[in-house]
Amino acid sequence: MSKTKVGIINVTGYAGVELARLLYQHPEVELASVTGRSAAGQKLGNVFPHLASIDLTIEAELADVDLVFSAMPHKESAKEVIPLLNRGIKVVDISADFRLKDAAEYLSWYGFTHPAPQLLNQAVYGLTELYRSQVASAQLVANPGCYPTGAILALAPVVKTGLIEPEIIIDSKSGVSGAGRTLSRQTHFSEANEDAAAYALDGHRHLPEIVQELKLLHPQPSPSVTFVPHIIPMTRGILTTGYASLAPGKIAASTKGKEELRQLYVDFYKDEPFVKVVEFPPHTKHTWGNNLCLIYPTIDIRTGRLIIISCIDNLVKGAGGQAVQNMNLMLGLPETTGLQALAIYP
Amino acid sequence: MSKTKVGIINVTGYAGVELARLLYQHPEVELASVTGRSAAGQKLGNVFPHLASIDLTIEAELADVDLVFSAMPHKESAKEVIPLLNRGIKVVDISADFRLKDAAEYLSWYGFTHPAPQLLNQAVYGLTELYRSQVASAQLVANPGCYPTGAILALAPVVKTGLIEPEIIIDSKSGVSGAGRTLSRQTHFSEANEDAAAYALDGHRHLPEIVQELKLLHPQPSPSVTFVPHIIPMTRGILTTGYASLAPGKIAASTKGKEELRQLYVDFYKDEPFVKVVEFPPHTKHTWGNNLCLIYPTIDIRTGRLIIISCIDNLVKGAGGQAVQNMNLMLGLPETTGLQALAIYP
Amino acid sequence: MSKTKVGIINVTGYAGVELARLLYQHPEVELASVTGRSAAGQKLGNVFPHLASIDLTIEAELADVDLVFSAMPHKESAKEVIPLLNRGIKVVDISADFRLKDAAEYLSWYGFTHPAPQLLNQAVYGLTELYRSQVASAQLVANPGCYPTGAILALAPVVKTGLIEPEIIIDSKSGVSGAGRTLSRQTHFSEANEDAAAYALDGHRHLPEIVQELKLLHPQPSPSVTFVPHIIPMTRGILTTGYASLAPGKIAASTKGKEELRQLYVDFYKDEPFVKVVEFPPHTKHTWGNNLCLIYPTIDIRTGRLIIISCIDNLVKGAGGQAVQNMNLMLGLPETTGLQALAIYP
Amino acid sequence: MSKTKVGIINVTGYAGVELARLLYQHPEVELASVTGRSAAGQKLGNVFPHLASIDLTIEAELADVDLVFSAMPHKESAKEVIPLLNRGIKVVDISADFRLKDAAEYLSWYGFTHPAPQLLNQAVYGLTELYRSQVASAQLVANPGCYPTGAILALAPVVKTGLIEPEIIIDSKSGVSGAGRTLSRQTHFSEANEDAAAYALDGHRHLPEIVQELKLLHPQPSPSVTFVPHIIPMTRGILTTGYASLAPGKIAASTKGKEELRQLYVDFYKDEPFVKVVEFPPHTKHTWGNNLCLIYPTIDIRTGRLIIISCIDNLVKGAGGQAVQNMNLMLGLPETTGLQALAIYP
Repeated sequence: MSKTKVGIINVTGYAGVELARLLYQHPEVELASVTGRSAAGQKLGNVFPHLASIDLTIEAELADVDLVFSAMPHKESAKEVIPLLNRGIKVVDISADFRLKDAAEYLSWYGFTHPAPQLLNQAVYGLTELYRSQVASAQLVANPGCYPTGAILALAPVVKTGLIEPEIIIDSKSGVSGAGRTLSRQTHFSEANEDAAAYALDGHRHLPEIVQELKLLHPQPSPSVTFVPHIIPMTRGILTTGYASLAPGKIAASTKGKEELRQLYVDFYKDEPFVKVVEFPPHTKHTWGNNLCLIYPTIDIRTGRLIIISCIDNLVKGAGGQAVQNMNLMLGLPETTGLQALAIYP
Repeated sequence: MSKTKVGIINVTGYAGVELARLLYQHPEVELASVTGRSAAGQKLGNVFPHLASIDLTIEAELADVDLVFSAMPHKESAKEVIPLLNRGIKVVDISADFRLKDAAEYLSWYGFTHPAPQLLNQAVYGLTELYRSQVASAQLVANPGCYPTGAILALAPVVKTGLIEPEIIIDSKSGVSGAGRTLSRQTHFSEANEDAAAYALDGHRHLPEIVQELKLLHPQPSPSVTFVPHIIPMTRGILTTGYASLAPGKIAASTKGKEELRQLYVDFYKDEPFVKVVEFPPHTKHTWGNNLCLIYPTIDIRTGRLIIISCIDNLVKGAGGQAVQNMNLMLGLPETTGLQALAIYP
Repeated sequence: MSKTKVGIINVTGYAGVELARLLYQHPEVELASVTGRSAAGQKLGNVFPHLASIDLTIEAELADVDLVFSAMPHKESAKEVIPLLNRGIKVVDISADFRLKDAAEYLSWYGFTHPAPQLLNQAVYGLTELYRSQVASAQLVANPGCYPTGAILALAPVVKTGLIEPEIIIDSKSGVSGAGRTLSRQTHFSEANEDAAAYALDGHRHLPEIVQELKLLHPQPSPSVTFVPHIIPMTRGILTTGYASLAPGKIAASTKGKEELRQLYVDFYKDEPFVKVVEFPPHTKHTWGNNLCLIYPTIDIRTGRLIIISCIDNLVKGAGGQAVQNMNLMLGLPETTGLQALAIYP
Repeated sequence: MSKTKVGIINVTGYAGVELARLLYQHPEVELASVTGRSAAGQKLGNVFPHLASIDLTIEAELADVDLVFSAMPHKESAKEVIPLLNRGIKVVDISADFRLKDAAEYLSWYGFTHPAPQLLNQAVYGLTELYRSQVASAQLVANPGCYPTGAILALAPVVKTGLIEPEIIIDSKSGVSGAGRTLSRQTHFSEANEDAAAYALDGHRHLPEIVQELKLLHPQPSPSVTFVPHIIPMTRGILTTGYASLAPGKIAASTKGKEELRQLYVDFYKDEPFVKVVEFPPHTKHTWGNNLCLIYPTIDIRTGRLIIISCIDNLVKGAGGQAVQNMNLMLGLPETTGLQALAIYP
């Protein structure tokens, strides 16, 4: 039986090439077509030597495929995706264009009027662990942002169960690849090396995404989230540290409470192939190149606060890997197909 | 007139060598003697080639000097310092041994019974900006820890003035040199490179120091602090991000409030040579190799929270530089003497 | 049919864990037993969290397996391997203990008297591309050193065909993981980061291995090799730059000569799955995590010299990957089984 | 007495900002004016926060100063410099525009016809150690390239004295800042981190500069130089490894010869404040931020070859620091004025 054909729109960014790497190694699908704005006409392996084994030319237009990944920037992605949906093709959109349910947010956060607001509710937010069954039957999956993936997975168990107060602090540390392949001063090696900085203090575009999902998990009272992203000098990885006060009368600020908390997380994620609740504070390195999210929940006993740490590879679970995870469900394949590579250490 | 002679006990750690670098370049003192446990008998420049211009041999016992820096590990440092104090010698102690006022804390946080609790109140906590006049007349200065320096300077203006609620989150990101020169798995290049991790989640030894000082700034209600340190893959620098809710009725969660907050910080530090309130989120790189602390205060208008960022070089303002700053005051020299080097960029 | 059982002696170094990663993902063998000196009794995943999916305990003694990888240090490895050979078990030795044919070299380069010199000629030097058929029928394969792998593959085509003069310069730049997992000052992050240095200028232990193999390729006149290794601040990868004068009357120092040279390399390696002759100077990043050796041959037309560049991942083609490649041949499996992962970029 | 006023044309590149840092800290000159193409009108400290203490606005046109540093790109620099020379102003040109004596080389290596070939012989090549007296009386000093500085200082003693054969290999490893502040794919953090590569294999623009100077040191037979630069993942530093066969009958390939070689270097550089002949292979880190060139000469006894290592900070001795060193001489100041900072370690 022939394999399902899949394609990538705009393969030339980091999410795109990571998708290409993962799809080429996927046993059940065939990466049949890739497009790229600037590199059209070139062999994929000439632009990205590590992909030289993939015998594809970057094209201006996508060939016929059964499922498409769009790795276009926001606003541009919707334009590409809408015609595909009209033709009945399944789409995993890596951009932000279908993640937010409220069309007005696109104007305020991304500065454009959404071209197809009616699709926003139809699109499934592709945080697989929270929307598994919807993803499986979706035509359009909006693949989550890298920060939201690490942050929501870290907080979902305690937000959903109301174990914390609504005031939530999310402090994330991202590798530089999260800023993309486009050249910029902040991603110049000599500037980013031996440097750390916070950014987007007036509101990062991933904030409404985090708020939307946490609110769906606990509508009343809804979470009040402060999110501060930082760039640190490594290529891959996001470490997220979340803070919130324990809700009164639920979990105790004690050693016993810590164990209960841990058990809550273990239970919450017990069937998840890609979420591991770990016994020690995790290292981003332990997710380098694979699709895992490692989570460590604990309690600051002195202050009665939850501290929650999560680690992901921003280009895998935070982008291409989760996209493949979603694709697997959409195609009726085992969710872990093609995603079982161990992290590369050291 | 001959220069004041100074010495360093245990020059062989990173704080010690940084002190040696700064003191050698200091125009008003003479680095006259250095000791080191493992390297005694060797030329300083043989062990540390960048110090080859300093014509000193690492000795087992310190020669007679007028002021001593102790860069011994905690517990060992007190043993070295006490006899010096008895002989009337001025001391800047880089270790933690005289930072905490409550002797009981040494047992609970450091695991030893303090040998001279009567000295704890006599010692001046050497966060120069807060204790300038006391430092000037002190015989014993307890040089602050690297994390406390960045955290307390960041929070002092709002804690002292009661502008924030007592619930404070401090999320710090440190370069690897903060873990010292001693070999360990976590500081092995292949482990630390391309990695980020939180540690000491059950309580870092710098926590009681931060709590002590913030409490002195605002005794009632006293701050409730959660402090989580992280190691990120760079050699030098600490970026601290602080979070707290604005106290009601003081500063508004608005653009105008942000400007008032900024003005408060500018005023608070207006005469400080080594604290700069900056207009954009600062980068640790902009402090690389110098004694500055850069601070950026802002408000998350959506949630009414203060966000405060500070950057220091952990080995300069966080260790050796601040020690020299304190020495300058103790010797009646202008505070900035020998500390005016610009950061090295890129 | 049950899978072939394999084991790793001393899994706790970087070569050992990389082998474990590769073997766990190998479809035709089962990693059935691992030993480790210091970590015996612990779960593999507790010591190496990225291997948590492998359900094995690190043992003091290896269980019965069909093929063993020894990742012991030199001298110790021979002791472990000899009894296994006597029991008829196949062995791939990652250490240097069976790489050199002349037992006297062990005394001069490694400082010990080889315990089983008679095995040295029986052992096959596991540079697969040069000894494929011998590997296939070997009981004992001596897996090459990381530097020799990159250097010999780079030079073999021109040495074998006599296209260069015997005076050969090999300048190699290695990531820090090449120095192993053992703690040392030179591999401390703060020392190795933002640093580059040459080492072993009086003769690195990989030199006799390189010389032995190049000499076998061209006995008269035999190559006169200067080899200088350098440590550069990255975790993985070896870039080797080789230099030699073109032998007179063979390949011209011209654009046409460059093309002939390139064609010679393409032909030499045309059937090799893991050696790629590339059209631009290769980057170590393009081999990150996979088993490829990328080679770029060119001519400095002004001086009539060959310049040859090769890149490998020192832990894959330079250690664990090549060991699996050899194992595949020894077990009659397709050579590329379990080794087809693309490099991870960026 | 008022200080000498100096200015920088095009302060906005890495050489320019490093000059600004050094000149601001220089006790005998006043940095009075800086220009910058893209940033004109902005405060220097707004563009480069580490320079915030320098109260200067980046201007479109340079104010009147006594000595000018031009940090313009090649071809552009000559245009700026020629009118200044006509007005009698002293100039240190950081660009390549006056380094080569043969105007024809500008066409072949840089692709432009030199606008003032008559100035080429008038210009002094500012490798201070070789041209000290000429620099002192020069109006125009052509500051050497970063690679030539490290390479020529390493080789001068043996080339001048004819101790090596003319066939010379120079293998250099440079930090990424050597590629400048301009954005490019190769200097993007995610591309350059965890990567090493050779480049410019058909001839780097610093080659003619190296050849010119080595030839002046030993005209007959003149050196035949192969030069291969590499980019390695660090910000600052160049490590150069040079190789050449010992000339027959001069220095023996023996331990005694090594000592003679070392003594030759010690003698050659005995009065040099910024060249240190070291006893162990040097680390680039030991020059981080200062003006030293560290040199380690040795002999590969097995092959009778000289191996010579040098380390510099490419932005200090390789650019801004050497420019200040030259300025000091041109202004009759002690050569080391303002350049005595120790390297920053770790």
